[in-house]
Amino acid sequence: MADTKTQVIVIGAGFAGLNVAQSLSKQSNVEVLLVDRNNYHTFTPLLYQVATSGLDPSSIAYPIRSIFRHKDNVHCLMGEVTAINHVDKSVTVSTANGERVESYEYLVVATGSVTNFFGITSLEKHAFEVKSLEKSVELREHILRLFEQAAWTDDDAMKDELLTMVVVGGGPTGIETAGAMFELYSYVLKQEYDDRQDLKARVILVEAMDSLLLPYPEPLQRSAEEQLKDLGVEVMTGAMVEDAGADFLKLKDGQIIKTHTIVWSAGVKVSPLAKMLDVKLAKAGRVPVEPTMEVIGNDDIYVAGDMAYLADPNGDPYPMLIPVANQQGKLVAKNIVNTLKNRQLETFSYNDRGIMATIGRTRAVAWIFYRIQLTGFIAWLGWLFLHLIMLMGFRNRISTFLSWVWNYFTYDRSVRIILNNKTDSRE
Amino acid sequence: MADTKTQVIVIGAGFAGLNVAQSLSKQSNVEVLLVDRNNYHTFTPLLYQVATSGLDPSSIAYPIRSIFRHKDNVHCLMGEVTAINHVDKSVTVSTANGERVESYEYLVVATGSVTNFFGITSLEKHAFEVKSLEKSVELREHILRLFEQAAWTDDDAMKDELLTMVVVGGGPTGIETAGAMFELYSYVLKQEYDDRQDLKARVILVEAMDSLLLPYPEPLQRSAEEQLKDLGVEVMTGAMVEDAGADFLKLKDGQIIKTHTIVWSAGVKVSPLAKMLDVKLAKAGRVPVEPTMEVIGNDDIYVAGDMAYLADPNGDPYPMLIPVANQQGKLVAKNIVNTLKNRQLETFSYNDRGIMATIGRTRAVAWIFYRIQLTGFIAWLGWLFLHLIMLMGFRNRISTFLSWVWNYFTYDRSVRIILNNKTDSRE
Repeated sequence: MADTKTQVIVIGAGFAGLNVAQSLSKQSNVEVLLVDRNNYHTFTPLLYQVATSGLDPSSIAYPIRSIFRHKDNVHCLMGEVTAINHVDKSVTVSTANGERVESYEYLVVATGSVTNFFGITSLEKHAFEVKSLEKSVELREHILRLFEQAAWTDDDAMKDELLTMVVVGGGPTGIETAGAMFELYSYVLKQEYDDRQDLKARVILVEAMDSLLLPYPEPLQRSAEEQLKDLGVEVMTGAMVEDAGADFLKLKDGQIIKTHTIVWSAGVKVSPLAKMLDVKLAKAGRVPVEPTMEVIGNDDIYVAGDMAYLADPNGDPYPMLIPVANQQGKLVAKNIVNTLKNRQLETFSYNDRGIMATIGRTRAVAWIFYRIQLTGFIAWLGWLFLHLIMLMGFRNRISTFLSWVWNYFTYDRSVRIILNNKTDSRE
Repeated sequence: MADTKTQVIVIGAGFAGLNVAQSLSKQSNVEVLLVDRNNYHTFTPLLYQVATSGLDPSSIAYPIRSIFRHKDNVHCLMGEVTAINHVDKSVTVSTANGERVESYEYLVVATGSVTNFFGITSLEKHAFEVKSLEKSVELREHILRLFEQAAWTDDDAMKDELLTMVVVGGGPTGIETAGAMFELYSYVLKQEYDDRQDLKARVILVEAMDSLLLPYPEPLQRSAEEQLKDLGVEVMTGAMVEDAGADFLKLKDGQIIKTHTIVWSAGVKVSPLAKMLDVKLAKAGRVPVEPTMEVIGNDDIYVAGDMAYLADPNGDPYPMLIPVANQQGKLVAKNIVNTLKNRQLETFSYNDRGIMATIGRTRAVAWIFYRIQLTGFIAWLGWLFLHLIMLMGFRNRISTFLSWVWNYFTYDRSVRIILNNKTDSRE
């Protein structure tokens, strides 16, 4: 690398990190090192479709090197960051070649969030997640394996256990996963197992609060619950989880649900990398930042996306959402350039267009600009359109679009293959 | 299952077994149990494209239950056959529910072939295969991982080792894999690693005989070799393999090639299930059958496809090819029906349309009806067309076709994701 360029290290190729690197790639006097543990960027909002056999992993994963193919000033390093030294300004990365130390002038940390099991170790051991591509494929193969097993067991109680799937968490991910799981059963698997017996599956959505979709207005919350029930999903609100095992989930009120499939989407916390920054962390382990996205007390380091704690004009922290991450990522790049040019730094203001969640085919809720409330088919069409244009790369858009068209009209799920049919890491 | 129907067990959902089950599914007085260790049928001729990031696994895998969705008389059981008892006519299957014993009136064994390492245990441990979907994905992720590693090593000798890939075996699979590997490097990976340095990869095709594509006429053999060299693949003929390790391949003449990627496609033998039949096996472990496809000495058991040893009119065994398996599978179904109707059994005659092999984009050789010899672009177009129509299922045809169009015009390989980036089972 040329010595005259400003060295910027970006950790994490999620939405925030990618936006930083893409914006900085246009600056010829900056050299970027983009570090990620994977060689691809994941379009996380569609992970639940990978988990429920609707999409191929490669449809929602984009090779990071492809994005920067023609950018000589962005270098990609696959590896895990093991240390951040903010005194001598370097990052240690564990790679296939061993540990590697890289120096920075500016550091951007954007490694997002991980699942929060709130210290319940039995959940950590037995629950599935839809937080990463690997975990989603693991869940897909687990569900398909259980249906095969259920079709051939002569023990009726065991059959019920195998076909009971519980999703914990009534946020968008939980709702989307529960809806898609039930449809995988009712439209696809049910038909294919008819030759032997009528397999009856249950999908139960468990939420600790009294209503689903907490930040949404009440009519949309009610609509989401009704649409889910209408589909066939059982909804339990006000139900707190206490314990879990390979074949059960126990609630605080003593109730035990016999199940081999617990999907946990009831909480996130910030990636453990935040602790390496040596600052006092905020709620959920988030890193407090200035409105310029600089870490408070260290203006060489920026944090953006889920990891950053920044209060909005009402005093609430900005939510962990993709539009926030995208806009914060762009601002970080802009402020690094501002610093280099000795210009005043800009502060974050969120251009918020609303929130939406989908509930199976043809159903959804949307809250546009926090004014217009949409439910049902219209909301679902909006969801489809928005997610297609957000997907990175023409090829992924085409393949996702075609899979959706195919699945919609044939009531099929195309990706029903069990690649790893020997082991189940959970049990 | 109703008692009045004839119980047929088919082991293996490859080309032979699937044809047996599909033909028998039209017979209302027959009940079929189709046993396979996977829940999908694999279109094996395109495995090398999965291994080289060209196609998604789901594009060439078809869920077995989908095929028989509307056939009440075909049941699918996922599991591994552990015993065949031909005295009391039953099969023991190891499943997720434990061992399961199923009775048959007629048994069809069609579990195909596996890689033959000819007893070289070091090869078995270190070499990759393109014989199954799982193994092909393993090879894909291994190659991508090595390129990431090579880009960041400061040791030039190590860099050369990491980027040297050896394919052993000059048959169609070896040729196709070597060609596709080199193109993955030259058209895709080379461009994306340009930011750091010019990575120079080598692909070496090693063949023990003096020419490639043994059964082809000499002009086609020569053409295949020329087309491969023209592409950039190094071809070593007359080179026997003696030993292998995590970072080398040793030839019989003492020569050592430093490499971390050995793909073994230099031999197959019949699946170990053949031994359960208690008959004297022929060359490569194949099961000798009557021209009716009944096992010699046991007319309740049929064997078809790669597993069957049957001499053609010249006295040579029929080759292990998909058209042979398809046609033998259909004949087995026909002869079971003939037996039930007390009709004369038919004997196998092979309707052979020729053989072909592809060598990267726009290159191929074809020997049509063993009369017309084609090379280059025309042969390649023929190969494309034939493989598309052979693929099972409209959705797989569409997705494969679109991936090909995409890869052809963009010089891209879309499926470059490393899902399992922590462990390499080989080393």
